Amino acid sequence: MSKETMSRRDALRIGALGTVGVAMLTASNAMAAAPTEKDVKFDEEYDVIVIGTGFAGLAAAAKAAERGYKVLILEKMGRVGGNSVINGGGMAVPNSSWQKKYGIEDSGEMFIKDCLKAGLGINHVELLETIVKRSQDALDFSIKCGAKWQDVKPAWFGGHSAPRSLVTDNMSGSGVIKPMHEFVEKLPGCKIMTRTKMDDFVMSADGTSVVGVTARINYRFDPKLLSDDVENKTGEKKVYKAKKGVVLASGGFSMDKVFRKIQDPRLVEDMDATNHDGATAGALLKAFQIGALPVHIDWIQQGPWASPDERGFGVAPLLTQQGLFKFGVAVDVRNGKRFMNEMADRKTRADAEYVILREAPKMYPVAIGTYNTFEEQIYPIIEKGLAAGGVMKKFDTLDALAANYKIPADALKATVKKYNEDVKNGVEDEFKKQTLKGESLKELKGGDPIDMKGPFYAIRLVPKPHHTMGGLKINTKAQVISANTNKPIPGLFAAGEVTGGTHGASRLGSCAIADCLVCGLVAGENI
Amino acid sequence: MSKETMSRRDALRIGALGTVGVAMLTASNAMAAAPTEKDVKFDEEYDVIVIGTGFAGLAAAAKAAERGYKVLILEKMGRVGGNSVINGGGMAVPNSSWQKKYGIEDSGEMFIKDCLKAGLGINHVELLETIVKRSQDALDFSIKCGAKWQDVKPAWFGGHSAPRSLVTDNMSGSGVIKPMHEFVEKLPGCKIMTRTKMDDFVMSADGTSVVGVTARINYRFDPKLLSDDVENKTGEKKVYKAKKGVVLASGGFSMDKVFRKIQDPRLVEDMDATNHDGATAGALLKAFQIGALPVHIDWIQQGPWASPDERGFGVAPLLTQQGLFKFGVAVDVRNGKRFMNEMADRKTRADAEYVILREAPKMYPVAIGTYNTFEEQIYPIIEKGLAAGGVMKKFDTLDALAANYKIPADALKATVKKYNEDVKNGVEDEFKKQTLKGESLKELKGGDPIDMKGPFYAIRLVPKPHHTMGGLKINTKAQVISANTNKPIPGLFAAGEVTGGTHGASRLGSCAIADCLVCGLVAGENI
Repeated sequence: MSKETMSRRDALRIGALGTVGVAMLTASNAMAAAPTEKDVKFDEEYDVIVIGTGFAGLAAAAKAAERGYKVLILEKMGRVGGNSVINGGGMAVPNSSWQKKYGIEDSGEMFIKDCLKAGLGINHVELLETIVKRSQDALDFSIKCGAKWQDVKPAWFGGHSAPRSLVTDNMSGSGVIKPMHEFVEKLPGCKIMTRTKMDDFVMSADGTSVVGVTARINYRFDPKLLSDDVENKTGEKKVYKAKKGVVLASGGFSMDKVFRKIQDPRLVEDMDATNHDGATAGALLKAFQIGALPVHIDWIQQGPWASPDERGFGVAPLLTQQGLFKFGVAVDVRNGKRFMNEMADRKTRADAEYVILREAPKMYPVAIGTYNTFEEQIYPIIEKGLAAGGVMKKFDTLDALAANYKIPADALKATVKKYNEDVKNGVEDEFKKQTLKGESLKELKGGDPIDMKGPFYAIRLVPKPHHTMGGLKINTKAQVISANTNKPIPGLFAAGEVTGGTHGASRLGSCAIADCLVCGLVAGENI
Repeated sequence: MSKETMSRRDALRIGALGTVGVAMLTASNAMAAAPTEKDVKFDEEYDVIVIGTGFAGLAAAAKAAERGYKVLILEKMGRVGGNSVINGGGMAVPNSSWQKKYGIEDSGEMFIKDCLKAGLGINHVELLETIVKRSQDALDFSIKCGAKWQDVKPAWFGGHSAPRSLVTDNMSGSGVIKPMHEFVEKLPGCKIMTRTKMDDFVMSADGTSVVGVTARINYRFDPKLLSDDVENKTGEKKVYKAKKGVVLASGGFSMDKVFRKIQDPRLVEDMDATNHDGATAGALLKAFQIGALPVHIDWIQQGPWASPDERGFGVAPLLTQQGLFKFGVAVDVRNGKRFMNEMADRKTRADAEYVILREAPKMYPVAIGTYNTFEEQIYPIIEKGLAAGGVMKKFDTLDALAANYKIPADALKATVKKYNEDVKNGVEDEFKKQTLKGESLKELKGGDPIDMKGPFYAIRLVPKPHHTMGGLKINTKAQVISANTNKPIPGLFAAGEVTGGTHGASRLGSCAIADCLVCGLVAGENI
């Protein structure tokens, strides 16, 4: 039997026998449909299989395991946590008990309105309503799992019309992932396998339901490949049964050099993103092949708070979001002037930066502030920013700062002076930088937001692919909807960035944790 | 064997025996993967199978048949031509021999720049380059098939920076479809079957290649169903072999009440579109299930030149595009003022109309002009507009017009007066209405563009879903790219609106015929 003539079913029958002929299998299986349970022999059997170990995957696994299910969690990378573990640790909880504690008025309607505004009105409102209904539960569940959140007034993230975001104690998603990972590992019948890549779904004999997955153990992701999902042949084939179903929580595809470029040809192969290397579309694309519906697949959010002077997410986002953007300014180096509302939604700000970068490539705009510009909880990060390969620079005077970035110094000084005055006087500035429910920036921060005595801190800015809004269509029970029935695919749930619709054209900051934990929890409850 | 336990393969084996148990088959097959050739018995055998009878399908079929192939063309509706036959008949041919004949300067670069501007930069440039290279060939091929084009100066369509669009003699896509249909029917070995719906692809035994399709004959599309693709069970199953391959030219999904709403929840189920009822996503979604990659799937273009006073495409688009928009004005009924460049790209204009309609639902803006405002070739359509259930209305005075639409009369008169003056003086107006390569509107049309003596013609405006930019990913040979290999799926080609990428976020007017004929031709050449 040659490789060419071997059928998919033959191939899978061989596959179930062990690791013989793995390379051949992988090649032959490359374009075949998902196998059915008749085509495979299961190596192991579980109640629930979860793909991915980010917020969504761990929440789903924890909830399912807590319900007494035997759960297998597959993670293709060598470490647990996907993008979640390098996330900034902010979680929007609209109309929460924490807001009430700090006297902040909010409502589910306000939250949905904010999301629809940023999302250009194409958001799936029923999924936003699910976040409104369940984000307090999801927060409480994370705390039950051991996550620690700063017990301070909720933070105000860009595009939100109220301060409604909690931040983990360590200002990182790892503050949720690590305890949740430990929680899951302690639960009986819960097993995490890293370096295990899901290859495909296994369908019921009639092709209608998901009953398991094929996977490879001892797989090694290779970031040097153009398309790891297609080209990587490492590992040994295994077939796992999922009696209750599969939860797909495989994340987004901001690092998928092929698929992201198909959606936006401007995202060239070597373009950096804030994501970990493994953020590719492979599992999502397999879901489309069993009938999952693609939603909003071309909306790729670019983080406007990233730096060209470090790889990946880095430390710049925290320093800008909780400091230089919030109370400082971002200026166009060509004229020393502000060019955007530094607290607008991500798309608005990334677009504003692109206007400059298209006119003058590499003339990265610069975010500027002083020590007091930063939120107190961010102070420990300042040294990291100054240390980490020069992401943030420190200057004694605005003249020195201007000279370094070739900004017209007088224009820059005038910009900072006017900004300070506007804040002091509670005047709405030219870009209508947001104020909190009528409070002016002045009331948030005493004195000049940028201390003219210096020293001055500066970070160069570049938008980086950060979050893929698109994905597969789910309902409010986290069930994946089939193109063939317009009803749920039995046995298939999905949660987190692999799904689409919730955030429409642009996700607001701190809505990822909310979305992932809520839908993960919901999937774990409903499976 | 019960329906529940019957496997996909069992079902298909029964299916191949005849029409017994069709309802059961359809139900059972609803979520199954595409069958392989091992699972089916072919009823008939062809070299090429083309799905769809619009511009793309007929061009592919004509070219393949001309090359000597035996071609089967499947059309699910009762008539040939899809949306193409109700299209306005304009075809952009950049840098064409006809432009040279009329002394018009143009270039492929200008065309691509125009498309990228409207498409928000996410267009797949290699596909635009294919249009540049092959649109003259496609035009010539249409003429060879019998299409007749007006031998006049190419028309200037919105968003184009040069007049580069030819229009058929009868100002309708039927001017291409009818002769091409006749051409195809005369070719030996070419067979068109209407009311025959493709249900799925048939794959090679190893699942890697497309080798045929399953279909239903005597199928009757039912526009009353929420989702005809999922719910309609009419017809009898057939299986057709395609030795050389299948060309998917099944069109867009502007009338798919389910899938379009998933992409944009604002497109509620009962919203009208310019498309024929059968413009649904069924075949596209089946292609995703054999690995075709989704591209730009949520960009749904709304035609800014449609009327709320007629169903579907109607006559309004011709009357506005070749008249009231080009040389007349569109005004906001609330204040009698212009509110957009009436010749901008479609997205810009639809967005401008939506700004009004969101603030004041049902306060449809009105396009206004006089007899001389219309292009001469549109004169025969004027009576149709006035007759067809009142799509266009005629008033002796601007006062009467203003009274009818409740427009402040003085403001309206001032708007028209200023517009006429701007045109006369060659002044760039406030919305920077485009001029042709330095020519002012005045030079295009002698005297007042709106004759103050009247009578005045008016059409109410509403955006209608018109073209779905998204679809599946093809290369410049019209081969469909697989998510599983990043290479072509052997035996599968696609052309026209079912593909995505070419037009990016927004297609320019008259680029549909170019795209469809070029890619259809290319598919027919390469299969």
